[in-house]
Amino acid sequence: MRIAVDAMGGDFAPANILEGVAQALDGLAWIDQLVLVGHQEKIAHYLDKLQISSHPKLKKVHASEVIEMSDLSTVVLRGKRDSSMTVCAKMLRNGEVDAVVSAGHTGAAVASTTVLARTLPGVERPAIATIMPAMHGHFVLVDAGANTDCKPFNLAQFAVMGECYYRMAFGVENARVGLLSVGGEDVKGNDVTKEAFKLLSSMPINFVGNVEGNTIFEGAADVVVCDGFIGNVLLKGCEGLAKSVMYWLKDAFTKDPIRKTGAILAKNAFRDLKAIGDSDSYGGAPLLGVNGVCIIGHGSSSAKAVYNAVRVAGESVKYRMNDMIVRRIEECGLNLEKKNPASV
Amino acid sequence: MRIAVDAMGGDFAPANILEGVAQALDGLAWIDQLVLVGHQEKIAHYLDKLQISSHPKLKKVHASEVIEMSDLSTVVLRGKRDSSMTVCAKMLRNGEVDAVVSAGHTGAAVASTTVLARTLPGVERPAIATIMPAMHGHFVLVDAGANTDCKPFNLAQFAVMGECYYRMAFGVENARVGLLSVGGEDVKGNDVTKEAFKLLSSMPINFVGNVEGNTIFEGAADVVVCDGFIGNVLLKGCEGLAKSVMYWLKDAFTKDPIRKTGAILAKNAFRDLKAIGDSDSYGGAPLLGVNGVCIIGHGSSSAKAVYNAVRVAGESVKYRMNDMIVRRIEECGLNLEKKNPASV
Repeated sequence: MRIAVDAMGGDFAPANILEGVAQALDGLAWIDQLVLVGHQEKIAHYLDKLQISSHPKLKKVHASEVIEMSDLSTVVLRGKRDSSMTVCAKMLRNGEVDAVVSAGHTGAAVASTTVLARTLPGVERPAIATIMPAMHGHFVLVDAGANTDCKPFNLAQFAVMGECYYRMAFGVENARVGLLSVGGEDVKGNDVTKEAFKLLSSMPINFVGNVEGNTIFEGAADVVVCDGFIGNVLLKGCEGLAKSVMYWLKDAFTKDPIRKTGAILAKNAFRDLKAIGDSDSYGGAPLLGVNGVCIIGHGSSSAKAVYNAVRVAGESVKYRMNDMIVRRIEECGLNLEKKNPASV
Repeated sequence: MRIAVDAMGGDFAPANILEGVAQALDGLAWIDQLVLVGHQEKIAHYLDKLQISSHPKLKKVHASEVIEMSDLSTVVLRGKRDSSMTVCAKMLRNGEVDAVVSAGHTGAAVASTTVLARTLPGVERPAIATIMPAMHGHFVLVDAGANTDCKPFNLAQFAVMGECYYRMAFGVENARVGLLSVGGEDVKGNDVTKEAFKLLSSMPINFVGNVEGNTIFEGAADVVVCDGFIGNVLLKGCEGLAKSVMYWLKDAFTKDPIRKTGAILAKNAFRDLKAIGDSDSYGGAPLLGVNGVCIIGHGSSSAKAVYNAVRVAGESVKYRMNDMIVRRIEECGLNLEKKNPASV
C-alpha cells in the first residue's frame, strides 16, 4: 500500500498537507509508504518541524513546479510537466503508487490522472463523488465537477460508480440511485436526463427515478447522479448558502444582550451544527473511474481533512473498489467497448 | 389595471388564494379589477366567509377544470382547456386583463401564457426570475425553471430581462449581470455557457463575467443567468438545504435543558433567520418575456404571498416593465427577428 500526496496543492499547502501526512504516518499503521511529492526545499523546514523527515515510511520525490489556481487544467500536461500533480499522476500510471491525494487544482488533478493513468477498463469518463449531508444521513453526489458536458451513457456510468462508492463508504448494498432533474416524473428533465432516465431504468440497479434539488436533502436517494456542471454549481451553491446561514445566525444571535446570553447557553448547539457541515471528516472526494485511486481534497483542506483523504485513499485500495466498479460496469452492460454506438 | 387570479392553483387553493385576494382588494386601492378565475361553486363559500362576494372590484369567471400537479404542462392546451389557468391565459391574450397570477402548476402557467399570449416582440423564450437572499442583500436568478434546454442566445435574453426586473424590484440601474458557471475564468463552463460568455461580453450591459454557486451568495452579481434546468435544481436545492438547516437547528437547540433555555432567550434570533428565507414577501416570480404580465407563486403560497404576487403583478404593469424589456432587447441587438441565424 503506497500513497502519493501532492504536498503543494491546496490553499494552505504545504503546511496543512504535511501536518495531515504526519497524522497519517502516526495513525494509519496499515499504510506501507507515503510518498510526498513537491518542491523538497520548500517542504524540508516543515518536515523537520514535524519530526517526520526521516520517518521510515516516508519517501520524498522532488517536483520543481506548482500548479496555481489560475492555471488552466491542461497545464499539467502541456506546460508544467514537472508539477507535483503531474509527478503524482505519473507515479500512479507507472504503478509506483496505488493512490494519489491532492487538495490542489481539481481540473488539473482530473486531467493529469485521466490522461496519464487512463480510465478503468470500460469506463469512458471519470467522475467526482462528493458526500453531502441530508436531513437524516448522507447522500453521494456524482459528478460533482469533473465533466461539464455529459451524454446519457456517462450519467449511467456515474450511477454505477456512485453505487460502488456508496457501498464502500457506508457499507450499504443496492444503494438507491436517483437522477437529478426538475420533476419527479420521467417526462421531466432536459434532453440528456430524459435519455439517461430510460437507460437507468433498464439497468440492474436500484433506480428510484428522478429526484429534485429539494428532495435530495430529504433522503430521496443514496446516490444522486448529474453532470459535473450542475453538480459543481449545486455543491458550491450549498457551500455558499451554508456560509451565509452561519453569517446570518451570528448576526441574529448578537443583536442584543438577551440573545447573546441565549447563544452562550446554547454554544454546544452551534458546535453540533458546524459538525454537520464539516466536510473535513469525509476525507475528500474520489475521482471515480480512473485506473488507480485518486482522492481530491477541498482547496481549504485542514490537516484533519488531509489525514482523512489519505485514509479514504488507502481504504479504496484495500476494499478493491476499482475491481468492483469494473465488474458492475460490465454487469450493467455499460462496458464502453461493447456499448451500442447509437447510445454514445 | 385588471389582474386575473387563478383561484384553483396551489397546494392550499382555493383558501389561501382567496384570502390573499381579499387582502389585495383591501390594501391595493390602485387596482381597478381583480378577476377570480376558477370553479365558482367551489369558491362561493370562501367568498361569502371573506365577505367579498359582491365587492365592486371583484369579477368572477368560471372555469370548470383544475390542473393537478401530476398533469403534464401541455394539459392546459391539449386536455383541460377549461382549466382556471388556461382561462387566465386566454384573458391575457384577449386583453381582458393586464396580468395573471397563479400559484399552481408552473409548467402549465409557462405553457399556457407562452402559447396563448405569446412572447414579447423580439423575445424567443420567456424565463422565470426568482429573488434569492444573498449574505447582504439579494440577487435575481433567471431562468429558475421555464426552459430546460437553452441556447446561448436565450441566456443573453434572460440577462437583459433579468436586468429590467432587477431595476423594477430594487430601483437599481445597470445591475451587475453574472453568468452561472463552474469557474471564474471565461474558459470555464459548459459548451453553452462558453458561447454565452462571448455574447454577453459583447452586449451593452454591466456583465461581470462568470459567477459560481458559492460566490452568488457573497453578492458576486445582482442578476445570475443560467438555463432553467440548473436554475431550478439550484433553487430547490437551496430550499431543501434551508429546510434541513432549520431541522438541524431545532434538533441542536432542544438536546438538553441548558440549550433549550438559550433557545428561549434567543427566540427573536430564530424569527429574524426565518424572515430572511421568507419568500412570501417577494411576491412570486415573474415569467419574464411573455406578452402580458404573469406572476408565478410558490405552490405553498400563503395569503400574504398571494397578496404580494398581486402587488408585484400590478407594479409590473404600472412600471411598464415589458416596454423596458422590448427596448433593452433591441438596444442589446438581441431582437429575435434581426438576429444572425448562425447564433441561434
